[in-house]
Amino acid sequence: MELTRRRFIAATPLSAMGLLSAATGLSLLAPGTAKASTSARDKHREPLEDFIYDIENGSEGWSGAGGTAKEATVEEFPVSQSIAGVLMTLKPGAFRELHWHSIAAEWAYVLEGRVRTTVISPDGSSSTDVFEVGDIWYFPKGHGHCLECLGDKTCKFILGFDSGHFSEFGTFSLTDWISHTNPGILSHNMHSNVLANQPARELYIGTGKIVTLPREPYINPDIPEGTSAHKFRMEADGILQNYAGGYTKLVSSKEFPIQTTLTALRMNIEPGAMRAMHWHPNADEWQYVMSGEGRVTIFGSHGRVKAMSYNQGKVAFIKQGYGHFIENTGKETLKLVVLFNSPVYEEVALNTWLNANPPQLIADHFGITVDQATSLVKGGSGIF
Amino acid sequence: MELTRRRFIAATPLSAMGLLSAATGLSLLAPGTAKASTSARDKHREPLEDFIYDIENGSEGWSGAGGTAKEATVEEFPVSQSIAGVLMTLKPGAFRELHWHSIAAEWAYVLEGRVRTTVISPDGSSSTDVFEVGDIWYFPKGHGHCLECLGDKTCKFILGFDSGHFSEFGTFSLTDWISHTNPGILSHNMHSNVLANQPARELYIGTGKIVTLPREPYINPDIPEGTSAHKFRMEADGILQNYAGGYTKLVSSKEFPIQTTLTALRMNIEPGAMRAMHWHPNADEWQYVMSGEGRVTIFGSHGRVKAMSYNQGKVAFIKQGYGHFIENTGKETLKLVVLFNSPVYEEVALNTWLNANPPQLIADHFGITVDQATSLVKGGSGIF
Amino acid sequence: MELTRRRFIAATPLSAMGLLSAATGLSLLAPGTAKASTSARDKHREPLEDFIYDIENGSEGWSGAGGTAKEATVEEFPVSQSIAGVLMTLKPGAFRELHWHSIAAEWAYVLEGRVRTTVISPDGSSSTDVFEVGDIWYFPKGHGHCLECLGDKTCKFILGFDSGHFSEFGTFSLTDWISHTNPGILSHNMHSNVLANQPARELYIGTGKIVTLPREPYINPDIPEGTSAHKFRMEADGILQNYAGGYTKLVSSKEFPIQTTLTALRMNIEPGAMRAMHWHPNADEWQYVMSGEGRVTIFGSHGRVKAMSYNQGKVAFIKQGYGHFIENTGKETLKLVVLFNSPVYEEVALNTWLNANPPQLIADHFGITVDQATSLVKGGSGIF
Repeated sequence: MELTRRRFIAATPLSAMGLLSAATGLSLLAPGTAKASTSARDKHREPLEDFIYDIENGSEGWSGAGGTAKEATVEEFPVSQSIAGVLMTLKPGAFRELHWHSIAAEWAYVLEGRVRTTVISPDGSSSTDVFEVGDIWYFPKGHGHCLECLGDKTCKFILGFDSGHFSEFGTFSLTDWISHTNPGILSHNMHSNVLANQPARELYIGTGKIVTLPREPYINPDIPEGTSAHKFRMEADGILQNYAGGYTKLVSSKEFPIQTTLTALRMNIEPGAMRAMHWHPNADEWQYVMSGEGRVTIFGSHGRVKAMSYNQGKVAFIKQGYGHFIENTGKETLKLVVLFNSPVYEEVALNTWLNANPPQLIADHFGITVDQATSLVKGGSGIF
Repeated sequence: MELTRRRFIAATPLSAMGLLSAATGLSLLAPGTAKASTSARDKHREPLEDFIYDIENGSEGWSGAGGTAKEATVEEFPVSQSIAGVLMTLKPGAFRELHWHSIAAEWAYVLEGRVRTTVISPDGSSSTDVFEVGDIWYFPKGHGHCLECLGDKTCKFILGFDSGHFSEFGTFSLTDWISHTNPGILSHNMHSNVLANQPARELYIGTGKIVTLPREPYINPDIPEGTSAHKFRMEADGILQNYAGGYTKLVSSKEFPIQTTLTALRMNIEPGAMRAMHWHPNADEWQYVMSGEGRVTIFGSHGRVKAMSYNQGKVAFIKQGYGHFIENTGKETLKLVVLFNSPVYEEVALNTWLNANPPQLIADHFGITVDQATSLVKGGSGIF
Repeated sequence: MELTRRRFIAATPLSAMGLLSAATGLSLLAPGTAKASTSARDKHREPLEDFIYDIENGSEGWSGAGGTAKEATVEEFPVSQSIAGVLMTLKPGAFRELHWHSIAAEWAYVLEGRVRTTVISPDGSSSTDVFEVGDIWYFPKGHGHCLECLGDKTCKFILGFDSGHFSEFGTFSLTDWISHTNPGILSHNMHSNVLANQPARELYIGTGKIVTLPREPYINPDIPEGTSAHKFRMEADGILQNYAGGYTKLVSSKEFPIQTTLTALRMNIEPGAMRAMHWHPNADEWQYVMSGEGRVTIFGSHGRVKAMSYNQGKVAFIKQGYGHFIENTGKETLKLVVLFNSPVYEEVALNTWLNANPPQLIADHFGITVDQATSLVKGGSGIF
């Protein structure tokens, strides 16, 4: 066991650590004392990881006649262990082929155009839905699905998955399976030989007839229509909270029951305003910037603070429990799509927390007067 | 963090990868483009692991006067991380001694003969049950239990555990504990010195008096009889589903409430028939072949397909979300005992999925006509 | 995959293993046979880890004008993966500053003096409670809180956390965050500049005005008083179970609903008595010795038994499913505070288990007579 071995490693001299009181923040290491081992605790002095990634331009991704896909998994964006993202465009007539994810659920927010999806559930029912800008979908892990551009305009959407590893270990495509399966088996399995001699390939994004409404019937009209709704109109029906400097629209599993592993938020921060200091006790946070410019600052304990700027096309990731705030540093509204890896939303606002203590106690923390502590009542929560 | 380091590794030349479109199936790697790193994605090109093991003959296992035990844990069968198996025989008068598993629940299906079990629950109650061919039991993690051959014929059963690591890290035997405990402590603990000088040993399978019905009373008749049933008559009372080429009998936690971590299935596939192409969104699958000959083919994404044959005495393991099908390749019925590591059963059938899409969309996937796509309506689900 | 590689390692000669039947306890390795690999199984021959640690004197910990803190995390006490402990004293006027734990809930038992806490919930409400000797608190993961010495006597309490890693990866302090944040941001965030120029530091334990009753009002009297009770009077209201040699007082999540990840126990063992042989199917066990002297003996399967002595100021850790017993080896009552990492309490008592089997079966296990087996009815459960 490595931890045992560490205990025999010589201590790092305190002089090499810098000013203990300010720089290290070792919670139980007294000034002037040293423990036998500092190796595990040294981790806390490692700089905080990068937590912003350019999903739109950071990698070449997939590009073809039908559209594009760029992804931010742990491969491209290592800090983002619990959530992965894909930014996708589909041209008119194009479709993301039938596929499933063995280890992750898929969530999406439509940025441009219209998307039609089909999805099958393990109960044998299927659902077809149309999504417009501001609508979201959620497909549980392993449910087969297909995404089609609807109509004659290119569509664009940001996808979120509830595992940062979703892609490498678990995206299964229909053409990949069919084209690698013995023709005799296929004919037996389907009572038909029409798929029996496909060249080995994975289509990924295909092109075909432009899809229009109303939808065509299923191959088999006896497949029952699913009753578990995969669609929520987030921009229209999310729970609105207005603030002096912007607003949020929340969709948790309470509003969208199938969304059992995630909570979603649309957030607008106006120029000059900030999303005030807070943290989430129960979830990591993942963000996609729809438009605008901003700066995220995180607090990772042990004196470690890190600020990074972002703008349209970037994703950000903030670990559970890390203190943070967001500034709008530009001249237009900063618009975010946000995911949390929990079915319920929780936050603790710094100002509320301070306000929930006696003034004397806060005064004793900071060496200020009781009157000064009492003046902290003016801070609010949210965006201002 | 290793993932970060990987990003600086030189890319594998595309020429070394073979035909991208067919052989690699990299979901987001466009033909003709390369990413800065391919190392993590290279994992997807590793051949699929072996997923069949000869539990009956693959290892010497345990063999003694009272019976035999052969096991398939991650040690013998590395792919099988979530489920382990043991094939056991007990001769008349023999018993698998009192023991418990600290990290796994025990499930079993009786193949031959009759077995009597005693099991104790943390509520202080105990249960004694008799199992015949086709019956199953389930003992939750940590509940002490004993298995006895009942009557004058050898019994045989296949055990399943809800962790592939159950054996190495967590099988605790009564004689092992007693024989390694200080005699004074034992006498104090039991108000009796009759166990105080046992030689150090672990009995494992012991021999004694042949067990008959009705059962003897407990040492202490005041121990209450448990009310949580550990027994289910799977062959008699499992949920029967008949198909053209065989049948299934299902026992999930709905039918057998104590079976909270597993779902069980008995499956028969007739000669010439196949269990059609499908996958399980929510569970790994573990199989034991009771009789017959077959071949399992799995689809592991990224163009990777692997087929392996099996027959009586083999176990198979299929990872969650992996596409698969089973052929009966012999002249007699292929009979399987199947476990899934989830309390509820879920599957998605390929044919149903195809049928739940508009014909035009399927035609666009495969370059076939709408009429051809429509012909796929004939494929069914299950076994045929 | 490492497990695959292990299979090609040469087998350890049996002669090097000692007497198989007694010394190794390999559950499925027959006497006289060898498997192709023994490396994974060799783990079971590794000596059991140390499971007692001197939290009071084992490390220098934190010491300052306001009090002291000593901790037992995986860094100091490697076996204790699931629970960490901190022993803390606060002098009159001292307080453990406002902070939160991102990955662990905090539990505590008051040993001396009185403590006042404030805690904020994600619903925006706050609670202030007063704790006396024998009272316990529970603060869920991520909920901001503060601990103050109440009155003019030093207070002392033992803290338990539901992760052995709680400290290194997740203690966030108010002064640490405030003092590392840009002054302009702080002024914007709080509508006040009174905290804007704090020197970089982490206060940890601060000193101030001696706290008395009744409590001062919050800075903001509009913060609602929380309704989820964080306090339970364990010594007064725990479920009492008397035994011939001591007693237990139990507090599970049934009695104290907020305590969703732990169960707590106060246990007294009188001189000459022992807590009888048993195990816990569902939880690891963590103990703090309030007073007295004792010895804990654990059984870790595969013939491995280990005994360690402890007294006031020590902590112990027993893994889930490991058999164990506790002797009072001193002249005064052995008093323990015990935690289990499960919301419900479960145990299996060895004597009850033996008693729940037919005498013939137990006789066959140990080569004793049926009459001798029947004599085992005299052993009871609990403490005697």
